Amino acid sequence: MQYPEIEKTLKKYLPKGDDALSKAMRYSVFSGGKRVRPIIVIESAKACRGSLRCALAPAVAIELVHTYSLIHDDLPAMDNDDMRRGKPTCHKVFGEANAILAGDALLTLAFNIIAKGTKPAMGIKIIEELSRSVGALGMVGGQALDLEFHGKVKDKAMYKKIDTLKTAKLFSAAARIGALAAQAEAKEIDALGRFGLNLGLSFQMVDDFIDGDGADNIEAKKLTQKANEELAIFGRRADRLKEIVEELSKRTR
Amino acid sequence: MQYPEIEKTLKKYLPKGDDALSKAMRYSVFSGGKRVRPIIVIESAKACRGSLRCALAPAVAIELVHTYSLIHDDLPAMDNDDMRRGKPTCHKVFGEANAILAGDALLTLAFNIIAKGTKPAMGIKIIEELSRSVGALGMVGGQALDLEFHGKVKDKAMYKKIDTLKTAKLFSAAARIGALAAQAEAKEIDALGRFGLNLGLSFQMVDDFIDGDGADNIEAKKLTQKANEELAIFGRRADRLKEIVEELSKRTR
Repeated sequence: MQYPEIEKTLKKYLPKGDDALSKAMRYSVFSGGKRVRPIIVIESAKACRGSLRCALAPAVAIELVHTYSLIHDDLPAMDNDDMRRGKPTCHKVFGEANAILAGDALLTLAFNIIAKGTKPAMGIKIIEELSRSVGALGMVGGQALDLEFHGKVKDKAMYKKIDTLKTAKLFSAAARIGALAAQAEAKEIDALGRFGLNLGLSFQMVDDFIDGDGADNIEAKKLTQKANEELAIFGRRADRLKEIVEELSKRTR
Repeated sequence: MQYPEIEKTLKKYLPKGDDALSKAMRYSVFSGGKRVRPIIVIESAKACRGSLRCALAPAVAIELVHTYSLIHDDLPAMDNDDMRRGKPTCHKVFGEANAILAGDALLTLAFNIIAKGTKPAMGIKIIEELSRSVGALGMVGGQALDLEFHGKVKDKAMYKKIDTLKTAKLFSAAARIGALAAQAEAKEIDALGRFGLNLGLSFQMVDDFIDGDGADNIEAKKLTQKANEELAIFGRRADRLKEIVEELSKRTR
């Protein structure tokens, strides 16, 4: 999956300074991420007859939000990870303080990019959607719950709740935001929202499976199928999204 | 300075759950802050013939951004403060992980509140202003610079740069955002921006003076005067802002 426009736009918005904060931000953003979420934004927009151009600012913003969440999750006080994608984590290279601040700055920059790069009526809806999905009732809430239940016995419902909050809500927001950027109808926005939610859940299950957490592979396939069913109303315009679903379900790392 | 509407609106938007994250967010937001920044938003709007109602959502959002910055600044990896306003800091009560996440969630909630609580054309300008002022080129950049130069010899220009980024830019944004919420003219927005910048710098100097950092009290008075001069064009409508300048310059803690 190669979208040179995503890399170009990320470069354009990231600070260019030689200070530790700027370097920490660039280090984590350009460290080999697959850009799954921004690609979902762009392809969801296209499925709704939108252009790549209309979706680019929100797409890049979502990648920055994802990156900030990884930096903070990796911190010693959180998951305490030294390596990510085969490279030392942000706090290992730049220290904890700069890693915390780099995360804060990336989250802030995400909203700045949407405010600058979209039309107001649309931008405000996109910001509302994104901030709802990644706040206390979304991604951050999921990480808090995950930490609270770390090492404790979890039933299937609790696993699903954590996966929904931590991962699937951002996938869902990515798809809905692509549709919003394309000024799609409510029916299309909602279908893509359900698509993203199911795709996100199956994505997380495949992740857990790779990590040997014994997740249910049959369940992941069911979710993938549910995601695909939501794409029916878009016809051929959703072909690329279907390919993405296929690629993500087959990945091994 | 008592604005019950600010407390009521904060309560309305903060999560109500019994989980650690929600409790950590409420703990830090309701821990005796003076609400200086939201009051500046509201009174700046009023100086531009706006209503309290139009300024309330952005006012509360700015208080949340300020609170998040305090939580993260207090962390062990940053300033490592155990107490704030006579109470244990957020990470002392709820642990580092929850403190990091509470800060993240408050920052995110700030943008959500503006998106939901203002008209789109205005909201997007306010979000652009706020996100610029508190990101890598504003507040977060100031904190990074402060940490980088911690314990090192700083000249007067470096002190001013850090104060501008860490404190004054958010004061300036608060005043400008009040004006934006009131749909003020560019001339008024810019005057209030300069007002806020000078007020913020003098506020930080008084803070440093209280903390015994040997800041220049005459310089602080000059800045206060400069701030007041910017209010001339608003006539009597800026009387409350002038009172605030006076109260802030006379505070001892």
